[in-house]
Amino acid sequence: MVGACSVSWRLTLGGVSWRVHGRLSFWPCGTHRDVIFSKIKKMVAWGYVAVPDLCEAAEEADLLVFVVPHQFIGGLCEEMGGCVSAGARGITLIKGIHVGPEGLRLISDVIREKMGIDVSVLMGANIAKEVAAEKFSEATIGCRILENGLLFKELMQTPNFRITVVDDADTVEVCGALKNVVAVAAGFCDGLQWGDNTKAAVIRLGLMEMIASAKLFSKKDSISVDTFLESCGVADLITTCYGGRNRWVAEAFAKTGKSIEELEEEMLNGQKLQGPATSAGVHHLLQQKGLLHMFPLFTAVYQICYEKRPVQDMISCLQNHPLHK
Amino acid sequence: MVGACSVSWRLTLGGVSWRVHGRLSFWPCGTHRDVIFSKIKKMVAWGYVAVPDLCEAAEEADLLVFVVPHQFIGGLCEEMGGCVSAGARGITLIKGIHVGPEGLRLISDVIREKMGIDVSVLMGANIAKEVAAEKFSEATIGCRILENGLLFKELMQTPNFRITVVDDADTVEVCGALKNVVAVAAGFCDGLQWGDNTKAAVIRLGLMEMIASAKLFSKKDSISVDTFLESCGVADLITTCYGGRNRWVAEAFAKTGKSIEELEEEMLNGQKLQGPATSAGVHHLLQQKGLLHMFPLFTAVYQICYEKRPVQDMISCLQNHPLHK
Repeated sequence: MVGACSVSWRLTLGGVSWRVHGRLSFWPCGTHRDVIFSKIKKMVAWGYVAVPDLCEAAEEADLLVFVVPHQFIGGLCEEMGGCVSAGARGITLIKGIHVGPEGLRLISDVIREKMGIDVSVLMGANIAKEVAAEKFSEATIGCRILENGLLFKELMQTPNFRITVVDDADTVEVCGALKNVVAVAAGFCDGLQWGDNTKAAVIRLGLMEMIASAKLFSKKDSISVDTFLESCGVADLITTCYGGRNRWVAEAFAKTGKSIEELEEEMLNGQKLQGPATSAGVHHLLQQKGLLHMFPLFTAVYQICYEKRPVQDMISCLQNHPLHK
Repeated sequence: MVGACSVSWRLTLGGVSWRVHGRLSFWPCGTHRDVIFSKIKKMVAWGYVAVPDLCEAAEEADLLVFVVPHQFIGGLCEEMGGCVSAGARGITLIKGIHVGPEGLRLISDVIREKMGIDVSVLMGANIAKEVAAEKFSEATIGCRILENGLLFKELMQTPNFRITVVDDADTVEVCGALKNVVAVAAGFCDGLQWGDNTKAAVIRLGLMEMIASAKLFSKKDSISVDTFLESCGVADLITTCYGGRNRWVAEAFAKTGKSIEELEEEMLNGQKLQGPATSAGVHHLLQQKGLLHMFPLFTAVYQICYEKRPVQDMISCLQNHPLHK
């Protein structure tokens, strides 16, 4: 069962020929309902059963795969919360993080709380359209119950979609959100034409701030640096900092001097960019804990996007980074 | 004192205004002696004293900085071995590794053995011409004696050339050599147009094979994964896999079907590419230890460059990589 809205990922799910063809519900979010329903026929041909009603689709499901834009996850969980069987297990492919007035919450936490099921996460350097075209890709499954992570790996792995499983769900999910903040910094660096050495430094210092933040977010006593060497970590970060729309819009920001809102309107048809929003959530959290000085790169991204700090000023956060002390 | 031949790095050394302006010897290696001597005037203007005789330059030196192409290090050490004072401390900026019939030897080991002094290494994502232009760059110093590493940091760090010191010299140096093997694989991937997901996987799997090889090379009981998060590790790897001539020539190899030797002639005026040569040294070592199956990416690079394995075949080493088992 797939509670899905994203067209590309849903086709991807079919494209990689997962071994369980289940009941598929297309939650009517977003504005592309017509497109979505026109694609259903293809999925049905692959063996999926399309079920318009979420509760009906969820009722008998053992496995739930969540693939909706992150802002819809709360409403989706509300709608299907009462219909899910007690033994169901979920996995979320949603890259993002819930930014509320109370700071950051992981998407998997929202699902766990509202639905009362175990939830794993799948992240990594896997742009959907390339996965759908069966180009070789890697992914990381992060789980809390190893058996469940391995079950989803068994279900999803194909010769060209290779998965590693790590028992560190929170870190895997945090990577998928924080990489976008680093990509904004990398985009500023490109826009200002600071060169390859500086960009490599931005990506590396960003990775180090990701690791330090993951320690703050984690509910475990310690997290393993090894998780950042999985596809969800360094690989996804690299891809996002060289391609990716956060990098692209941030480059335009540095070049044109327009605001993030103007560029979202012009370049993304008004869709929200995840990196700046995530930087705001992180900033809120770090400020509460009195730790802003330990995260100069994340802080600079927030202040440049929202507080009119000059973008050229990012150089001072690199020059005075505590890691070089 | 700088026993140097590389023009760009020597200018860089002056460009970043190191605090000790010493006696500088230009070892007459290579074919660019005229160019080198024409640059001496600039260095002298910065406060260096140019000394044509290596032994004379070395005799009273406390600190020795080695910056020559790696193939000249043996001869240079022979020439100055008897002239160096017992308390001298060295640092090498040479990226590369000595590939002989016995397999691989680190450049720092060659210097230590021939000169009997302590040697640190400086590596990282720091393309010389960008450092010379004072663009912000990072570097890693790896040392065996922490005091010596910190001394060189004190000497070399400037606001735009930021250094971290790690007590793990071998790993830092191994990174500088093995990244070139991964860059060859990344170039093949680009030449075959396999896309962003696959390239990210190649870089990540390459990094994992670098870590596993460093364990084999290291004389310590264990090495820290943290070293790979320094500039010498992930940052230098990224820069080399996106820019860098190993990537560039390997891309042409996959596109044109010409041999590495032909491309070295055409694209590099006959200069040797480090990645394929290093892959040969690594292959020799892994074969001796019966460990080729644990390093499918490194093995594929060697076999594609030297044993006519079809370049498209690299996909099978990705699909069957032991890390996904």
